[in-house]
Amino acid sequence: MPAKGVLVAVTADVVIAGGGVIGTAIAWRAAAAGLDVVLADPAHGDGASLVAAGMLAPVSEALFGEGALLRVNLLALARFPSFAAELEQVTGHRVGLRQEGTLAVAYDAGDYAALMRLTAFRRSAGLEAEELDSRACRKLESFLSPDVHGGVLFPGDWSVDNRRYAAALRQAAAAAGVRVVRDRVTAVLTAGGADGADGADGWVRGVALAEGGEIGAAQVVVAAGSWSGAVDGVPAALRSVVRPVKGQLLRLRHPDGMPPVLTHTIRATVRGADVYLVPRADGEVVVGATQEERGPDLTVTAGAVHDLLHDAMSVLPVTSELILAETCAGLRPGTPDNGPIVGPAGPGGVLLATGHYRNGILMSAATADAAVACLTGRAPAPEWEPFGPGRFLTRQGAR
Amino acid sequence: MPAKGVLVAVTADVVIAGGGVIGTAIAWRAAAAGLDVVLADPAHGDGASLVAAGMLAPVSEALFGEGALLRVNLLALARFPSFAAELEQVTGHRVGLRQEGTLAVAYDAGDYAALMRLTAFRRSAGLEAEELDSRACRKLESFLSPDVHGGVLFPGDWSVDNRRYAAALRQAAAAAGVRVVRDRVTAVLTAGGADGADGADGWVRGVALAEGGEIGAAQVVVAAGSWSGAVDGVPAALRSVVRPVKGQLLRLRHPDGMPPVLTHTIRATVRGADVYLVPRADGEVVVGATQEERGPDLTVTAGAVHDLLHDAMSVLPVTSELILAETCAGLRPGTPDNGPIVGPAGPGGVLLATGHYRNGILMSAATADAAVACLTGRAPAPEWEPFGPGRFLTRQGAR
Repeated sequence: MPAKGVLVAVTADVVIAGGGVIGTAIAWRAAAAGLDVVLADPAHGDGASLVAAGMLAPVSEALFGEGALLRVNLLALARFPSFAAELEQVTGHRVGLRQEGTLAVAYDAGDYAALMRLTAFRRSAGLEAEELDSRACRKLESFLSPDVHGGVLFPGDWSVDNRRYAAALRQAAAAAGVRVVRDRVTAVLTAGGADGADGADGWVRGVALAEGGEIGAAQVVVAAGSWSGAVDGVPAALRSVVRPVKGQLLRLRHPDGMPPVLTHTIRATVRGADVYLVPRADGEVVVGATQEERGPDLTVTAGAVHDLLHDAMSVLPVTSELILAETCAGLRPGTPDNGPIVGPAGPGGVLLATGHYRNGILMSAATADAAVACLTGRAPAPEWEPFGPGRFLTRQGAR
Repeated sequence: MPAKGVLVAVTADVVIAGGGVIGTAIAWRAAAAGLDVVLADPAHGDGASLVAAGMLAPVSEALFGEGALLRVNLLALARFPSFAAELEQVTGHRVGLRQEGTLAVAYDAGDYAALMRLTAFRRSAGLEAEELDSRACRKLESFLSPDVHGGVLFPGDWSVDNRRYAAALRQAAAAAGVRVVRDRVTAVLTAGGADGADGADGWVRGVALAEGGEIGAAQVVVAAGSWSGAVDGVPAALRSVVRPVKGQLLRLRHPDGMPPVLTHTIRATVRGADVYLVPRADGEVVVGATQEERGPDLTVTAGAVHDLLHDAMSVLPVTSELILAETCAGLRPGTPDNGPIVGPAGPGGVLLATGHYRNGILMSAATADAAVACLTGRAPAPEWEPFGPGRFLTRQGAR
């Protein structure tokens, strides 16, 4: 006799744990590929996906020397426009993809030297970059401060409205037949092994839910972002790999009647501190972001808000006139090598799609392709090969 | 036959338009004095009263040369503790009156010179003030920046938790029998004159409400803060006198486990800019406030939040570690001479209690006394004599 609340009747081909952009993109594409999909999330995917700024930038200063990660980011960027176009066609809603490019600006000479190093690295990877002096920067963005030392236009760095994108993904998934369960997956259940025991090598038979139910399925995708380690039944070596990296950011809005103050995404370095400003078509400007190793802390602090506003106002003084509409914090799923974890956790039917750190929006489309390939017995694109869970299962051998 | 929605059955001795701390304090005391009172407010008094910081400071730099205003503020301060004590006794709830005093600090030498001028003025008014060097300031408040030039302790400047105070007033008013109507008073109605006509000199017969009802009453108190001018039937010369003065402020909170960073209210001048930090017993710290002549604009702007945080962090660097719990804006009811308007608007039964500008919380208790005196045919305390509506009715003669 089932325990109270156990949903013994729910079964699917695939259960996806986590309804952020990664889990929902996989759910949509898996259902479109003919699989019967249940997506489980206690909170409608309101984690890091909704806090993000939506920058689609394959290179950041963190990527020096990370060639494999650069290659998978470039794959992801190339895939994004067609994925977004199909999403808009299916749902009838715009997701706010902007391809004007990103203007990186340096506040002082030291900032400019760092920007030149980044520019050289980007060029070595085959990416377009156009150096601009202070005046040329202001010709592109007239509200930039004359104090800005200089900049570089990166035409290939785009942005998407992450909230519209996430909402469209949910709508597309639902239209494709994905069923959503508002509950948290607590454990992967295996046939033969003890429920939830680490390292059980039986085949997956489903998942257990926080409120007491179960969902039967032969394959499970763990796409729970920084909470991915909280799912029992994932190998212990993988559970400790993903850590939360706190990011605080701001959403500003133009007051009624003020014309747009920005066209391009601005990435600025202000005396060594990085800040970005991402404009939306609807008048929103996202300003971010801190990077803090503080565990699962979602508080918004006075100091972070001050510093973000200060740095944004340093390069774009008119920022002070914008409305501070929202302050928020999210938890990026970080990994020891800054790379995502996408692939089978072993032979038993558990797939991981997590650890996307600062690039979850960018990588979502390509991750969905890779995950659906795994779920349907095909090989993902070769760029994913270095990013399987296996690199953390072999005693740190893949470092 | 009454129009749809007209509440012909509601009558009272007094209708009070406005449920902020002024209107609610008057309502409570009037009901306690035996009057049958209806309080009308569309939004439960969620205007400037809830945005305020609750400082009870009879002197500010705006008061140089405003001797009459100082005298009524001192009356108000003297009245506050017994009023608050009765309120706490009646309701059983604490209102968070803090009497540790206020530490005024100056960031640089110029700020200190200005503080010394203010201190001399306060002493000339008989108020206690103790000059402290930077080290002595830090003995009182150990988290103050060593950069603070010096300060002055004003033991007689207190604070109250304005939100607890407002909530207690509402509870006390209800317990005393005040009836609350959730609607906006649009006009004072007079017998004999045309409804709502300016300058009608008939006696009051009640008020008209936005949703179409009426309340019958022989006396009306207009206590609608910066919206007081929106009530038809108030003499035209008075309706244009009260203007909204926007104030933005922040509510910070201590993270779990952090001991309190402040005991005294801090009033700081940072390179000419004023900022205050008001600690609450429950771990809240209110940081304020801008003063902006922008009409009825309630937006929170990036520049104001930045400047408040910057100035607060300049004198109390640990502020950066606090949680930014809330940003808000309110509209102080300002007047041409910075003084309140309390008294009869003429012989017809209309009483004004508005224009309290930056001192509404401070003056609420004394204003209630004065208003109830007027409503019951007695004379208010002599300190109120210069602050009647008459000074604006006689062609600016009272300037």
